[in-house]
Amino acid sequence: MATITNFTYDEIRIGQSTTFSRTIDEREILLFAAASGDVNPLHLDPDYAAGTRFGEPIAHGILSASLISAAIALQLPGPGVVYVSQSLRFLRPVKAGDELTARLEVTAKRDDKKFVTLDCEIVNQHGKPVVTGQAEVMAPSEKTTIETPVLPAIRIGT
Amino acid sequence: MATITNFTYDEIRIGQSTTFSRTIDEREILLFAAASGDVNPLHLDPDYAAGTRFGEPIAHGILSASLISAAIALQLPGPGVVYVSQSLRFLRPVKAGDELTARLEVTAKRDDKKFVTLDCEIVNQHGKPVVTGQAEVMAPSEKTTIETPVLPAIRIGT
Repeated sequence: MATITNFTYDEIRIGQSTTFSRTIDEREILLFAAASGDVNPLHLDPDYAAGTRFGEPIAHGILSASLISAAIALQLPGPGVVYVSQSLRFLRPVKAGDELTARLEVTAKRDDKKFVTLDCEIVNQHGKPVVTGQAEVMAPSEKTTIETPVLPAIRIGT
Repeated sequence: MATITNFTYDEIRIGQSTTFSRTIDEREILLFAAASGDVNPLHLDPDYAAGTRFGEPIAHGILSASLISAAIALQLPGPGVVYVSQSLRFLRPVKAGDELTARLEVTAKRDDKKFVTLDCEIVNQHGKPVVTGQAEVMAPSEKTTIETPVLPAIRIGT
């Protein structure tokens, strides 16, 4: 079982950064459609997508953005964080099989509320930005290391 | 098979609104964790969550926010839309079983780019706001009605 360790507010430094990488494939797109209810065929139906400006199915923008949230929850600051706000700008389509990397960098701290501001950028395997934005989080006060659960098996199709 | 019909840029009026409702249960939280890679036990492990400020597992903030994206993609403007940007503020935790309703209202149009601004609010079954924000989208030029795909069966566990 894997463990994750957080950074407390006091440990976090301006300029500190982290990256979180993940391939967004048809499976992730389908699971996200099932979780969110967003069954727009642009994400799911190659025939329909072929007739759009994108030419092939693309990932939901919010699915790509979820890498930022995962990096915050698991790495910087990690467990104990409270997500306050997020801005997102969707710059390029993400296609099934794209390898995304979210990079977060601390740009500000606000001592009275223990708020941390993070600049966020997600790039694809060609180094091109697909999502940019800014996150504000309340960083944890206490140092902690916790185990991450193993997800149950998920089977798609009959 | 269900169909969805869009609103073109020219059809969209300031003040036009839509709602999209969905129950976020353990299943949706698990599918989102699998899609995003965010396996923070706060969302998945009742024992761990019991020791946090929330007392029980909560949904990922971005999962709740995905209702906004679904409402944009399926209803207002619907198919043909291009998602440009989204701001999000996370106001309250969402717990498994909460019934969420996203409400979107058109607040501005920008003719030169066919951009539409939408005020967004998600409330829980008690009418309390859990997420607020603003979306900017490029609205479609052409009227269209399309079929939405039926998702394959997804089975969790062995």
